[in-house]
Amino acid sequence: MSEKKRRRADPGPSGPTAATKKSRARGSSHAHDLRKQLKPDSEILASLRRMYDEAQSAAASSSKTLTLSDLNLSSACREVSDCDASSVKLAIERAILDIARSILAGRGFSFDVPSRSASNQLYVPELDRIVLRDKSSSRAFANLSTVRKATITARVLSLVYAVLLRDIHVTKRDLFYTDVKLFQDQSQSDAVLDDASCMLGCTRSSLHVVASEKGVVVGRLVFTDDGDRIDCTKMGIGGKAIPPNIDRVGNLESDALFILLVEKDAAFMRLAEDRFYNRFPCIIVTAKGQPDVATRLFLKRMKAELKLPVLALVDSDPYGLKILSVYMCGSKNMSYDSSNLTTPDIKWLGVRPSDLDKYQIPDQCRLPMTDQDVKAGKDLLEEEFVKRNEGWVKELESMVRTRQKAEIQALSSFGFQYLTEVYMPLKLQQKDWL
Amino acid sequence: MSEKKRRRADPGPSGPTAATKKSRARGSSHAHDLRKQLKPDSEILASLRRMYDEAQSAAASSSKTLTLSDLNLSSACREVSDCDASSVKLAIERAILDIARSILAGRGFSFDVPSRSASNQLYVPELDRIVLRDKSSSRAFANLSTVRKATITARVLSLVYAVLLRDIHVTKRDLFYTDVKLFQDQSQSDAVLDDASCMLGCTRSSLHVVASEKGVVVGRLVFTDDGDRIDCTKMGIGGKAIPPNIDRVGNLESDALFILLVEKDAAFMRLAEDRFYNRFPCIIVTAKGQPDVATRLFLKRMKAELKLPVLALVDSDPYGLKILSVYMCGSKNMSYDSSNLTTPDIKWLGVRPSDLDKYQIPDQCRLPMTDQDVKAGKDLLEEEFVKRNEGWVKELESMVRTRQKAEIQALSSFGFQYLTEVYMPLKLQQKDWL
Repeated sequence: MSEKKRRRADPGPSGPTAATKKSRARGSSHAHDLRKQLKPDSEILASLRRMYDEAQSAAASSSKTLTLSDLNLSSACREVSDCDASSVKLAIERAILDIARSILAGRGFSFDVPSRSASNQLYVPELDRIVLRDKSSSRAFANLSTVRKATITARVLSLVYAVLLRDIHVTKRDLFYTDVKLFQDQSQSDAVLDDASCMLGCTRSSLHVVASEKGVVVGRLVFTDDGDRIDCTKMGIGGKAIPPNIDRVGNLESDALFILLVEKDAAFMRLAEDRFYNRFPCIIVTAKGQPDVATRLFLKRMKAELKLPVLALVDSDPYGLKILSVYMCGSKNMSYDSSNLTTPDIKWLGVRPSDLDKYQIPDQCRLPMTDQDVKAGKDLLEEEFVKRNEGWVKELESMVRTRQKAEIQALSSFGFQYLTEVYMPLKLQQKDWL
Repeated sequence: MSEKKRRRADPGPSGPTAATKKSRARGSSHAHDLRKQLKPDSEILASLRRMYDEAQSAAASSSKTLTLSDLNLSSACREVSDCDASSVKLAIERAILDIARSILAGRGFSFDVPSRSASNQLYVPELDRIVLRDKSSSRAFANLSTVRKATITARVLSLVYAVLLRDIHVTKRDLFYTDVKLFQDQSQSDAVLDDASCMLGCTRSSLHVVASEKGVVVGRLVFTDDGDRIDCTKMGIGGKAIPPNIDRVGNLESDALFILLVEKDAAFMRLAEDRFYNRFPCIIVTAKGQPDVATRLFLKRMKAELKLPVLALVDSDPYGLKILSVYMCGSKNMSYDSSNLTTPDIKWLGVRPSDLDKYQIPDQCRLPMTDQDVKAGKDLLEEEFVKRNEGWVKELESMVRTRQKAEIQALSSFGFQYLTEVYMPLKLQQKDWL
């Protein structure tokens, strides 16, 4: 773009209020300096390609990722894995057969259900995930305190079996509505569904019970959704909605050099409209806030199959980091499924507390942190996944100290396209992530 | 599907609790009777085609829709319309020129801003929309009580001009962040943005300031999103995310016989996975709850260009109807933009209060209405758009009387695919909508 057009269009330095003019002009001239630091795209691309090659060869040399059995933990810990419909059906049939045998042997009707309580959870640093220990409890039919749950468990297993037979997918809400009188409350059928997942050793998505999707993807990715070939460079600005059922997703192909994980849809829209992925080949994905299961599964799948580095663009506040932690380490109430839902090794590109000064984000775009924000920040400093990364600790400490936060949108104060034209390219050029 | 497979898969009648067995079996046998009432698809399709032809010829004979000027209200009322970027730029230039002239003539610097308050709103039954009366107020720079708002107005106009010059789209949040010191609070820049829209006579989307999208679409529709051709029959189960910027949407083509507007994403997923649109050619769209502006614009656009009947599938509760009302009549705080956002003539297909008995929805799937629900229902009975439709009044009265509500998912109690295999086909066969 010509300098003239850029200047004319840049809304930064032409404000009407005299008072703000000086500070804005200073911030804006700094923004201009940063723009001049940008090297030609070809140089940035060459450096990105080296990073890509490293990620590919690292993935090739460590031919498999570490598992519980590598750590001799497979008997002491429990995880679930993705299974195809016929394996899940077989697992259900086996469970029912075991019960039949137990009844015939005079030992009665009882399920052996893994405990999912916090006391049975374990953070494994080598895996960088939370997993379940092996504690389990008996859920007997002939016992007043467990008869209800045993009945619900049998019902849920039979419903899942019916869903798998039909080869369809349903939501947790659908499942609940098939027997409201028995389940009474959706939280009951939901909890037993998680139990069933642990019992059978299969992920919840293997059971064909899915959460509703809210994520979108755009950029250099081609995949099939239920057999339809989707080219994400041809999805306009709206992007492709991430499918709720990951087992219908297949044939991932990409010439991207990295995956850009974006917290918010406003930033996603900016990047999509500017077709950022054509300038720097990448796949852009967002869950529009708190990550849902479908988006986490989709990211994990892309990372595993395409072996691309993942860079994250989140707000500079404790919640931005919390969102990263959900993608990376999982949430506590689905710890049994952590290996299938988590994508370790996500790089924190920005917006980082140190960016606020580096990019001279104007004071009025920085927001004061509330006491609750500060507490959330301090809590994060105690988390294992933060402690392991010295750079993150420093950034988080500085956030808590300065009590300042900022949204990705704060970059708009230098012009609406500053994100795509200066901030992101400079970040990529300087490999400025942690 | 063979009767055998269906029976095996139907989770309805094989529950483990003896107590619920009888009532469930009764409901399920009724469900089975309804299934037998279904005629061959070819007959249902022929009747749908007649409905489609009627809609097309009705649209052709009333070659234009009623406008304010047809009712001699154009001088007394105010509406905005979709304008292209160059007309909006021209309108801004004219507004600024007018002010320059006013200053030169010694009358000072002042904006004439239409009032958007409730007292200036008018429901026009002929249009079935809320519009603005012509009251406006002067926003002078040389007046302590209006100087701030006048300054903000000038700033917003200049920002919108910059966005249009660049031919990009931004969010309200982006706009706010370009001058936090001046705007102080996003509600202030948002409000002035609506003012600017009224002043210029252009819709907010014409100003290229967009809301984030959350809607998805799937089915018999082909369109272009920012130049990319999107075939919505090839969007898998996830569907295509509806673009935030309607002005980049074009070239709509369809062989659908109707549009199916769905309140919730769970029902959307069921319909998409079962590829319902291949059995009954239709376009399926959802905003996943409360309709956002992008989805409303998209629906309006489809209805206007394709002239298809619109059938709505919502929960049987007051909020289901409220959602319909937003699609049909608009929301009060954007009444100046009602003609561009609203799609009148949406048919209420279900789930209606009378469906609960007709389809013998089991008692345990009906939920008691709270006092707040009942109040919301009674409030709706006072609304013009309900009063005009006798069938709606009856249904709503029965809902308030029985104090029962039900979600779309309640149909899952007869099997997960009851919605797509029995309920929807029977509704279409019987033309059972109001």
